[in-house]
Amino acid sequence: MSSVIISTADPNADREDSITVPLLSGLRSVPNSSSQVAIVGVNVCPIESLDYEIFENELFKQDWRSRGKLQIFQYTFMKWLLCFLIGLIVSLVGFCNNLAVENLAGMKFVVTSNMMLESRYGMAFLVFSVSNFVLTLFASIITAFIAPAAAGSGIPEVKAYLNGVDAPGIFTLRTLVVKIVGSISAVSSSLLVGKAGPMVHTGACIASLLGQGGSKKYGLTWGWLRFFKNDRDRRDLVTCGSAAGIAAAFRAPVGGVLFALEEMASWWRSALLWRSFFTTAVVALVLRAFIDLCLSGKCGLFGTGGLIMFDVYSESVSYHLVDVPPVLALGVIGGILGSLYNFLLEKVLRIYSLINERSIGYKICLACSISIFTSCLLFGLPWLASCRPCPADASEACPTIGRSGNYKKFQCPAGYYNDLASLIFNTNDDAIRNLFSKGTDDEFQHSSVLIFFFTCFFLSIFSYGVVAPAGLFVPVIVTGASYGRFVGMLVGPHSNLNHGLYAVLGATSLLGGSMRMTVSLCVIILELTNNLLLLPLIMLVLLVSKTVADAFNGNIYDLIMKAKGFPYLETHAEPYMRQLSVGDVVTGPLQLFHGIEKVGNIVHVLMTTRHNGFPIIDEPPHSECPVLFGIILRAHLVTLLKKKAFLSTPDLTGGSNASKQFLAGDFAKRGSGNDEKIEDIDLSEEEMEMFIDLHPFTNASPYTVVETMSLAKALLLFREVGLRHLLVIPKISSRSPVVGILTRHDFMPEHILSLHPMLVRSRWKRLRFRFPPLSKLF
Amino acid sequence: MSSVIISTADPNADREDSITVPLLSGLRSVPNSSSQVAIVGVNVCPIESLDYEIFENELFKQDWRSRGKLQIFQYTFMKWLLCFLIGLIVSLVGFCNNLAVENLAGMKFVVTSNMMLESRYGMAFLVFSVSNFVLTLFASIITAFIAPAAAGSGIPEVKAYLNGVDAPGIFTLRTLVVKIVGSISAVSSSLLVGKAGPMVHTGACIASLLGQGGSKKYGLTWGWLRFFKNDRDRRDLVTCGSAAGIAAAFRAPVGGVLFALEEMASWWRSALLWRSFFTTAVVALVLRAFIDLCLSGKCGLFGTGGLIMFDVYSESVSYHLVDVPPVLALGVIGGILGSLYNFLLEKVLRIYSLINERSIGYKICLACSISIFTSCLLFGLPWLASCRPCPADASEACPTIGRSGNYKKFQCPAGYYNDLASLIFNTNDDAIRNLFSKGTDDEFQHSSVLIFFFTCFFLSIFSYGVVAPAGLFVPVIVTGASYGRFVGMLVGPHSNLNHGLYAVLGATSLLGGSMRMTVSLCVIILELTNNLLLLPLIMLVLLVSKTVADAFNGNIYDLIMKAKGFPYLETHAEPYMRQLSVGDVVTGPLQLFHGIEKVGNIVHVLMTTRHNGFPIIDEPPHSECPVLFGIILRAHLVTLLKKKAFLSTPDLTGGSNASKQFLAGDFAKRGSGNDEKIEDIDLSEEEMEMFIDLHPFTNASPYTVVETMSLAKALLLFREVGLRHLLVIPKISSRSPVVGILTRHDFMPEHILSLHPMLVRSRWKRLRFRFPPLSKLF
Repeated sequence: MSSVIISTADPNADREDSITVPLLSGLRSVPNSSSQVAIVGVNVCPIESLDYEIFENELFKQDWRSRGKLQIFQYTFMKWLLCFLIGLIVSLVGFCNNLAVENLAGMKFVVTSNMMLESRYGMAFLVFSVSNFVLTLFASIITAFIAPAAAGSGIPEVKAYLNGVDAPGIFTLRTLVVKIVGSISAVSSSLLVGKAGPMVHTGACIASLLGQGGSKKYGLTWGWLRFFKNDRDRRDLVTCGSAAGIAAAFRAPVGGVLFALEEMASWWRSALLWRSFFTTAVVALVLRAFIDLCLSGKCGLFGTGGLIMFDVYSESVSYHLVDVPPVLALGVIGGILGSLYNFLLEKVLRIYSLINERSIGYKICLACSISIFTSCLLFGLPWLASCRPCPADASEACPTIGRSGNYKKFQCPAGYYNDLASLIFNTNDDAIRNLFSKGTDDEFQHSSVLIFFFTCFFLSIFSYGVVAPAGLFVPVIVTGASYGRFVGMLVGPHSNLNHGLYAVLGATSLLGGSMRMTVSLCVIILELTNNLLLLPLIMLVLLVSKTVADAFNGNIYDLIMKAKGFPYLETHAEPYMRQLSVGDVVTGPLQLFHGIEKVGNIVHVLMTTRHNGFPIIDEPPHSECPVLFGIILRAHLVTLLKKKAFLSTPDLTGGSNASKQFLAGDFAKRGSGNDEKIEDIDLSEEEMEMFIDLHPFTNASPYTVVETMSLAKALLLFREVGLRHLLVIPKISSRSPVVGILTRHDFMPEHILSLHPMLVRSRWKRLRFRFPPLSKLF
Repeated sequence: MSSVIISTADPNADREDSITVPLLSGLRSVPNSSSQVAIVGVNVCPIESLDYEIFENELFKQDWRSRGKLQIFQYTFMKWLLCFLIGLIVSLVGFCNNLAVENLAGMKFVVTSNMMLESRYGMAFLVFSVSNFVLTLFASIITAFIAPAAAGSGIPEVKAYLNGVDAPGIFTLRTLVVKIVGSISAVSSSLLVGKAGPMVHTGACIASLLGQGGSKKYGLTWGWLRFFKNDRDRRDLVTCGSAAGIAAAFRAPVGGVLFALEEMASWWRSALLWRSFFTTAVVALVLRAFIDLCLSGKCGLFGTGGLIMFDVYSESVSYHLVDVPPVLALGVIGGILGSLYNFLLEKVLRIYSLINERSIGYKICLACSISIFTSCLLFGLPWLASCRPCPADASEACPTIGRSGNYKKFQCPAGYYNDLASLIFNTNDDAIRNLFSKGTDDEFQHSSVLIFFFTCFFLSIFSYGVVAPAGLFVPVIVTGASYGRFVGMLVGPHSNLNHGLYAVLGATSLLGGSMRMTVSLCVIILELTNNLLLLPLIMLVLLVSKTVADAFNGNIYDLIMKAKGFPYLETHAEPYMRQLSVGDVVTGPLQLFHGIEKVGNIVHVLMTTRHNGFPIIDEPPHSECPVLFGIILRAHLVTLLKKKAFLSTPDLTGGSNASKQFLAGDFAKRGSGNDEKIEDIDLSEEEMEMFIDLHPFTNASPYTVVETMSLAKALLLFREVGLRHLLVIPKISSRSPVVGILTRHDFMPEHILSLHPMLVRSRWKRLRFRFPPLSKLF
């Protein structure tokens, strides 16, 4: 027993103290340990934790006991119906998104190319750059003015939500609309941004909105949805929604499930696997039906394409031991490039956030200048490449005119094509298709691929942070594919693999180096390219690139999430947490209530603190000695105050009536940001002197830890069970029955290290700083 | 607060009570709540729980603090090295297994077929049945006499192990050898058993043996392995091993990871995903290298075949809305058949266990009679089928002579083939290949496929329970494929899909109906058949068949596990658990120790109970009031007693020395079954009067719950954190500081319902019985 307890002030004393502070002067006077801020989209917003714990109070138990077969059927049926609807709507959105982008961007390129055929180069540039500029401007204006939370990919926000951090505005209808429309126009504007990330956010948003059950304001709600008005069920739906997002973006249903499992979700159960599988199966079936529909040519200019986006199937892929070294090299370089990519992207984001926080005008200017710069590069760079004669045995018309294809004419004479334009003056999807294609080993010059690689690498880094919906998947794939193709061209005839397969492996390596996923990336790549024989090499490349990149920094989404300030709770405990006890990090002052509490006291405490959970204790004469009864939430207290179910005397006899005035539904948790505020409740002087019996509304089964427990073990409990509040009880029972509350914030390394600065210099901390990723390996 | 606490007797009184019982008369006199029995393989053995919790005592903290960079490097390096070795060895075993089976069974069929060509039918039957008989006899003899734990598929045992149930003998070297050799001979003997299940057990076994770090007895151990001598690290290795098993059996590396995740593991972390992915990547690369090697013909008669076992790729699979109804029907029937399969298999296993428990002779007789019966069926049934003329446009020689193929000649004249013999008188892998093949829509008659289906369905049910290693995957695939092919033949020209694809979907539906996996089955089927375009239909079939089957009963492995008596801890709480508090299920008597305890008392308690964890309390004069200090394990007490680090007086001054006599390694957990026993320790009368300071060896951070907490929430903590013991503390602090211990056993529905029989009749229980699978959906 060696733990040194840094004595927290006597909690009871604290309580007396804070209660004597006058009502108004105390606002925000106590340290605010439960409310934090983070960058959501592009704006700084306050964030809260989510309640995943089942709040077992008297009312809940009554409600639970009263649920009959019908209610259970309703709940189960609704759960599957919601998953079905999520799958259906997300696949519709994904399909329309794809169609809109293909037609918008396609039209733009067709018009520009036609002008170039007529040698009206200046006009072509004007049309190209102005249409890009207008599309970017539109995307950034709607994002900045209507829904700033829709900026960026949204994956960090959704990931934080699934970890238990509620950021306001990420799941509103407004965000959803802006995300969809903004993503279409941003991608069509030739900015080097992807649509997979926004699709994940869109899917999560649709799931959350469906789960919220319409709008109470407009009377659009359904009784059957009442079971979903809690964070636990909403979390499951959002997980399914993000799986559906990836499934719709890449037509990769299994990859979507695995992405949600590996990258997004912090809590996973086999039931959830089954439900998200159902959701993505719906996506797959609906997409397949639409593809059937589009094959008959009803989807406009560019609406064709099968279930597999970048098919590189070949009957027999032969590779032998001699092909392993270049593939290994591909993995190593991919890992280095990936971590460099993450590093630069984070730095650029930090610079952008300085610009973005100034005013909306700056944000939009930034987006527009990036657009102009991009247009200049895309139109200007192909002039550097020399024209190449069309190959005699080309599998398609050369040069390609009036449609997307491998051989762009650009400025070249008839019979010639511009290989750099085929890559750069094209949509990203077509560029990837060109890079992945087999039988085109002689199509590209070294210099063109290299120029394309550098352009993509830097443009995608600079484009991500603009105030518009922007994903990272496709930019990383296109960058990686160009680098892989280049390596393939260097290795050349010494290898059995064609250059297209090298491009696939290059894309895999950069994805692995930047996103650090394993199984999900592997399956997504498989579902994108349909080449199962390549699987051993894909696995090898992923292993190597992730290992190499992990030696430098973290996963791109984690870096962004941390830079944005989300308090993400890791599963593993830092080594120094084993040396600290819970008592070492609990900070006061603690706010307690009695089982029967004076209304005035409750109002005062709610007004003067931002705490969300309050321990309830019973003291003599209501019990023989001070006893911890449970914990009550701020939102529930506000509801109680609003309904004014007060007692005139602190007497238990009338207590049983109080709970009858309420239904479990009164305490249902609404969507984020819709909470009622204590400031909106009017109470008379007389009412302030009355009492409330809090017992029926108190969670009587709170999780507790003893103050001497090691912090690492408390974290394990907090994280695995998914808590918002963890009560700390004293070791020696003669003291107050509760000495503090741990929240997410108390487990953050920054918080702990600020309390115990000597740890920063200690060996444990140093070790961690030198080998940052090692602790993750434990 | 309405929970009715069924008052457990005062724990202190209990303790006094049991201490006054004389030493010898009390053996096993107290209820044995921690040691249970279950059927492991075919024998009944005692089982224990595993310790996944980090045991944070003084010694551990010292050891942890003293670990420098070198130790951390050793640990990390060894972890990856072990995973590499697991992958390497499992793929070698899988490859050899495959090769041995192909050559053994292939030779048998070639010899028999040659005799049949010479019309020596009697002789052929004799050779066929005798060789089958000998192989089965060999498999059952080595299993029954050398390692009974190797019988069956082993998946239920490994799954229980990963849930925290330690069954002795499942991971010994003996079991490993018998499993490999027995599986080869059982599969070669034409018994309808698979090799995937045994491969999972083999992989887990190899992982566990590697983690145990050789044998101390023979001096074969390595210092670097000392970090792995605990159940937590061993659990991770076993998970990787089972992933490698599936990867090697089906050449499905991603499917293997997902199988381990979805079906096997009870605790999952992203680090584990990454490590098992590494393991299966090694498997994929090694297998790929061997396949390269075998292409040059060095692997005997039948050692060819690519990375994809049953390739059904086709350039474009076209299906439309019209194909959905038959596919849905396939799913529904597959679900019904799958649940029927599970039901019958469990019943047959119960009957077999009555036979098996009689004597070894009975077991072997049972296996032999199944073998004879199988031989008769396989040889006899093809005579029922009429000979069919060879198709003119056959893609291969017809009839097939001297090798495996689609057109078996059997008894037919030249130019004719026997379609039933092509299926039934063949290895399972070849039968599956025939059923999956495209362009062979006219090959089979309705009656032949139907006969084959019924034969497979019942033979596989009767073959599984014999005393030999036997898997279920391949039998289910072959049965499902025949049923799917039959449906395809019925639908015939009304569908766009060929019969081979129907067979694939049929296999999928029966797998889904029997094993109830989703993502992992989907990926395994994809990796087996390499037809990505079929993915939406595969997902649809899996969804339907699992949903239908879930309405009847549970997953096959769970049924077997429960029938065998493993106390598997589910993640979800039963509804009635919300109505019970922890105090309602805690049963006495509780055994406590003091911080400084008399040796005699410890010996007495260890001799008279089988408990594995004992709370340690400090009482006056060592503390101001009785305080819970922590919990100590039986194994640690035995080690302490063995080292005789005793004090002559109950005095704290000498206490600090005690811990210096020990290293953390002294308390390392050995492999199962190797624990030292209290009975083996000799102590003199004098020593019995001495004292031990237990403080440095006590886990001072035990997880605790208050006795009024609801059982459902306690289960959540117990299950999510992975505990073996959960201490129950009193609500009112004036009582003893601990009122009971919860173990796995206390959360078992059978235990709870036996304590509270009224729950059986209550609505909650009834609801559960009427809709058994519903509770899983929550």
